[in-house]
Amino acid sequence: MNVVAISGSLRKASYNTALLRAAQKLAPDLNIEILEIGNLPLFNQDLEDSHFPEEVHVLRARIKAADGVLVAVPEFNRAPAAPLKNFLDWSSRPEKDPLPWDGKPVGILGASSGPRGASFAQYDVRRTMGYFNARVLGQPEFYLGNNVEKFDADLNLTDERTIQSLQKFLDSFSEHVKNSSPTH
Amino acid sequence: MNVVAISGSLRKASYNTALLRAAQKLAPDLNIEILEIGNLPLFNQDLEDSHFPEEVHVLRARIKAADGVLVAVPEFNRAPAAPLKNFLDWSSRPEKDPLPWDGKPVGILGASSGPRGASFAQYDVRRTMGYFNARVLGQPEFYLGNNVEKFDADLNLTDERTIQSLQKFLDSFSEHVKNSSPTH
Amino acid sequence: MNVVAISGSLRKASYNTALLRAAQKLAPDLNIEILEIGNLPLFNQDLEDSHFPEEVHVLRARIKAADGVLVAVPEFNRAPAAPLKNFLDWSSRPEKDPLPWDGKPVGILGASSGPRGASFAQYDVRRTMGYFNARVLGQPEFYLGNNVEKFDADLNLTDERTIQSLQKFLDSFSEHVKNSSPTH
Amino acid sequence: MNVVAISGSLRKASYNTALLRAAQKLAPDLNIEILEIGNLPLFNQDLEDSHFPEEVHVLRARIKAADGVLVAVPEFNRAPAAPLKNFLDWSSRPEKDPLPWDGKPVGILGASSGPRGASFAQYDVRRTMGYFNARVLGQPEFYLGNNVEKFDADLNLTDERTIQSLQKFLDSFSEHVKNSSPTH
Repeated sequence: MNVVAISGSLRKASYNTALLRAAQKLAPDLNIEILEIGNLPLFNQDLEDSHFPEEVHVLRARIKAADGVLVAVPEFNRAPAAPLKNFLDWSSRPEKDPLPWDGKPVGILGASSGPRGASFAQYDVRRTMGYFNARVLGQPEFYLGNNVEKFDADLNLTDERTIQSLQKFLDSFSEHVKNSSPTH
Repeated sequence: MNVVAISGSLRKASYNTALLRAAQKLAPDLNIEILEIGNLPLFNQDLEDSHFPEEVHVLRARIKAADGVLVAVPEFNRAPAAPLKNFLDWSSRPEKDPLPWDGKPVGILGASSGPRGASFAQYDVRRTMGYFNARVLGQPEFYLGNNVEKFDADLNLTDERTIQSLQKFLDSFSEHVKNSSPTH
Repeated sequence: MNVVAISGSLRKASYNTALLRAAQKLAPDLNIEILEIGNLPLFNQDLEDSHFPEEVHVLRARIKAADGVLVAVPEFNRAPAAPLKNFLDWSSRPEKDPLPWDGKPVGILGASSGPRGASFAQYDVRRTMGYFNARVLGQPEFYLGNNVEKFDADLNLTDERTIQSLQKFLDSFSEHVKNSSPTH
Repeated sequence: MNVVAISGSLRKASYNTALLRAAQKLAPDLNIEILEIGNLPLFNQDLEDSHFPEEVHVLRARIKAADGVLVAVPEFNRAPAAPLKNFLDWSSRPEKDPLPWDGKPVGILGASSGPRGASFAQYDVRRTMGYFNARVLGQPEFYLGNNVEKFDADLNLTDERTIQSLQKFLDSFSEHVKNSSPTH
């Protein structure tokens, strides 16, 4: 299986990125590769004609080719962090080309320092993914609150209960990807 | 009165920017100045310590000093366009400093090519503004659908009914700003 | 195929109910049966032990047995009309029993007198359905705005363009139901 | 000061109602009176002409006369519990009469057994209140998660930290009501 993952945070010590790294270890058979979205310019339709970012074509192709996509959603100000929305907006362009998300199995998860685990932001991304006609895993949801307590200083996921729920989430996601396969 | 305005679209021929320009003409006493948000880097907490963008300090100061703020919200993929979220996220940093939005009278409006007038995106921004403790004008809402038909080729607002409803929106916003004044 | 449908409005002359009636005519092979949700008591957990409404068991069984479910969503006050939420809340009880929505193919549509076609309310129901682990049809969305102009006095859908887009929606929904089938 | 409060849960042992009772004790000067919303019929526009519920007139008058309104929001299925939406929908009828919420200071809070404190449901109610042109207190938000641990067996709020944050919320709400007063 060939899964790509996006972390909505550009911060090096991002807990959402760390969550995806933990997922890589917990589910080696998913072959999760984390895509880089930090080099995209700020979304601007005027760039489309003259300077369409080559990077966007690459990212779109990676999504299109993937069996499934994981999206780790940081919440800022009760909504998805800007770099994630920036990536999502670019990923939908150019308008004339088919959306790489169409029918794609998607798993959404998120970590936050507060207790709610990026709940608002996660459902905002679900809304956009519904519009993209992606197939979002409904349950289990994955809200990681109080993230600072769950990782060690090197951002390894150490909290046993969280490891278990992440494993369960990844198992369900894996099943979801398999069931969504056109050859299924 | 001293009002600043943000257009969430960086596109030169943006209908949301055109809406703000129409507002400038319809309400000269508001002294609406449109701020530039396109030069901000993509939000990244790592920049905070080492390379905090000077631009953010300037924009925050402008919001803080304004009697009120208008936000024109473009909707992409059923949520606010990335440049707007990027601006909102930067405007909330650095965390240690007081939010420039606290108690600020805010008017939210939006234009879209479809019939819904950026309705989802507008309420997402309302959610963030509630979190910022801003005072968002509740009614009238301002949804400009089918925007292409409402402007001429030079992006002047020409549709009579839209002009009237924008005037009404601006009158209510002006009243809202006055009523929110600490000296009121 | 055996599809059940819920109209969130209890009003006899409801446009959302009329939309479902139009769907019955346009897609006879779906065998759409409209369920009655108006006899449910107002949701109250205290009723669960002593007076659990028999009606809820019946409705849950109908959803469980259906190949797919259509939900017509009226919007009141920028959110789903109360009778629809009342039905959804009852449908999730008693908590100990398995949710009838789990894995169920669901199509969401809505009509409104204004131009937005119950857009907020539809996505609120999508959020709940995601939580229920239902499989919601992503695209096409179906927003019927300005509903009064689209039906005749007897609430027959007469607007040609709307008939076409409803047909397209139903075709996609039918495909969605087939693709979600466990025997697929 | 004369504050009315609504608990969105009809359950006798409701934690949201218990939260309002705790508020009554913590802020005796607000004179918080909890309104009964459980006797309303399920919302149905057909009742408007023939059998408009007398109860609705009474509740609307109480809201209209109040200096401020507190709304305790239970979350079911990632959205406000049905009885609360039922009350909100009735409170907006009949359409020809002025909304009792217009300009009204409103404080929104919520309790849940999970960690998120009814966060989705609270912001859904904020959306409706924005549409009603009410003046919703932005900050502090009040999310009471893991509610079972915070109350004793008789549903008295006993958790010291929660008591403090509720006190802070009520102080801010009281200030908000005073600042919104037309005679201010």
